[in-house]
Amino acid sequence: MSNKTAAIIGGGVIGGGWAARFLLNGWNVRVYDLADDAERKINEMLDNARGSLPQLADVKMPPEGALSFVADVKSAVENADWIQESVPERIEIKHSVFKEIQNHAPESAVLGSSTSGYKPSVLQQGATRPGQILVAHPFNPVYLLPLVEVVAGAETDPAVVDRACEILTLIGMKPLKVRKEIDAHIADRFLEAVWREGLWLIKDGVATTEEIDDAIRYGFGLRWAQMGLFETYRVAGGEAGMAHFIAQFGPCLQWPWTKLMDVPELTDELVDTIATQSDEQSGMHSIRELERIRDNNLVAIMRGLKQTDWGAGQLLNEHDQRMKDAT
Amino acid sequence: MSNKTAAIIGGGVIGGGWAARFLLNGWNVRVYDLADDAERKINEMLDNARGSLPQLADVKMPPEGALSFVADVKSAVENADWIQESVPERIEIKHSVFKEIQNHAPESAVLGSSTSGYKPSVLQQGATRPGQILVAHPFNPVYLLPLVEVVAGAETDPAVVDRACEILTLIGMKPLKVRKEIDAHIADRFLEAVWREGLWLIKDGVATTEEIDDAIRYGFGLRWAQMGLFETYRVAGGEAGMAHFIAQFGPCLQWPWTKLMDVPELTDELVDTIATQSDEQSGMHSIRELERIRDNNLVAIMRGLKQTDWGAGQLLNEHDQRMKDAT
Repeated sequence: MSNKTAAIIGGGVIGGGWAARFLLNGWNVRVYDLADDAERKINEMLDNARGSLPQLADVKMPPEGALSFVADVKSAVENADWIQESVPERIEIKHSVFKEIQNHAPESAVLGSSTSGYKPSVLQQGATRPGQILVAHPFNPVYLLPLVEVVAGAETDPAVVDRACEILTLIGMKPLKVRKEIDAHIADRFLEAVWREGLWLIKDGVATTEEIDDAIRYGFGLRWAQMGLFETYRVAGGEAGMAHFIAQFGPCLQWPWTKLMDVPELTDELVDTIATQSDEQSGMHSIRELERIRDNNLVAIMRGLKQTDWGAGQLLNEHDQRMKDAT
Repeated sequence: MSNKTAAIIGGGVIGGGWAARFLLNGWNVRVYDLADDAERKINEMLDNARGSLPQLADVKMPPEGALSFVADVKSAVENADWIQESVPERIEIKHSVFKEIQNHAPESAVLGSSTSGYKPSVLQQGATRPGQILVAHPFNPVYLLPLVEVVAGAETDPAVVDRACEILTLIGMKPLKVRKEIDAHIADRFLEAVWREGLWLIKDGVATTEEIDDAIRYGFGLRWAQMGLFETYRVAGGEAGMAHFIAQFGPCLQWPWTKLMDVPELTDELVDTIATQSDEQSGMHSIRELERIRDNNLVAIMRGLKQTDWGAGQLLNEHDQRMKDAT
């Protein structure tokens, strides 16, 4: 992977995270950012990344690539293999940056956008080389979290999508090919729903930010670090399976639980689609096996957190101490 | 904690999880359930709990309590210290079960309900001893996940709430006192919002159950195992802080990102409330410190998952192997 170069256009929290991810995986990185303090901030982020990302590996990381800060888009993107745009979420800025990128980028480069909201087809409007443009939406901190949503627009070359996924895998990420363009892709739609509900709970005086965070990190947050929504519910449904779970809990969607009440109709077809997809995803394991896998994962996560003495880990340490004191 | 007795009324996935949690923490447990296979299922769940919960402790667990299955509510609740109702979510069943419980329970017992939807004041309708009744809503698997939402109704005795929280802490849980009754309490309102959005994504053909689960477990699920929504965003906001984050991302709530569009108005007052609460929660740490804490936690979680070779851990192992193969 040596001798590869990534051009980072926009070096904020997301662009800087991309820079660290590429650098520590042996890529050379050229950063273009308008802000005076971009270099300082990225170097601080790099210190964090150097202290954490290598701990995830049981083998030696490749030698770090060379990092440089450049004065214009042209200098960043020339001869680059991957060009990643992480500028503010305003379409006129994105379009202007992509225009400049296309003027100077190699035809072999992947042109990725970190946009959390725009569809790739919107980014491609007016593009001279739309085939190279796709969304590669990462999650903060980019140097640690594996997920990247990879979304092709109407004019994206499928070969570019494949190459993008291959490269992302090589730098330790989990590319998730999104099958249909949609505003905000997938994950941020959930974050949006949760964020909005959180705002309501605070506005209505039901919970504080800390209480909401505790409700997440001592409960379903621990589940979601290893299984997602559907696999978790599959296990919860027990031996009767996913269709049973939906039959049991589906109607709750018509209760006045959240502030926002427009719900999809739970037709037989939709229930069947979900049950079938869940079978395809997890049907190779029995419920018992899935429970054991889940439990082993939860133990592993929480044992890890004991060592950092944080959240659930701190709670366990305090509980240990209490049990020690009691004997 | 020896010689304490818990009565478990309803021994399904939740009631069985409560039974395991109490038993392994040295309590005697009496289970009442109508189903023929409740005993078999609870014993299977106990096997899982015995194989996992003790691994979270660095000290010896207390000797297991005695488990018995009884034929009626009366035999279960007599002389019990904690009585936990986990019967189906239908109010007429809940009311009938609570009536029977109150006929035979000691006046000193905590009468907890596992309800995920009903307010405690609704459970207290027609109660003869409403002061003992509260919601103690746990999360599956109850023997591993720490969170319990503790909700008092209008007539709940505050001393009972305090005793409940004390007992829950002693059996290794994290009681979260919910400050205001609300349908579905706190955590399930988020799960409800996410569940509904997930159904839309599937219905519209945007993502499969597996893709949705991957979007969660390789991304924000890893974050939420250690920090929640607001502390995570606080860190993401960087040096400018929480108010800056809300100013930057708040408007996104008016974009057509989710299917459900009724949003709270982001008044200055609301922004200020959130920023203030966030300060109180996390202001003792600098952003830099919080980043390091977060990174250490994420490393700990993912190192743990490497040992179970699941999700992000499996990904890292495969990446290790790939890097090994490349050298």
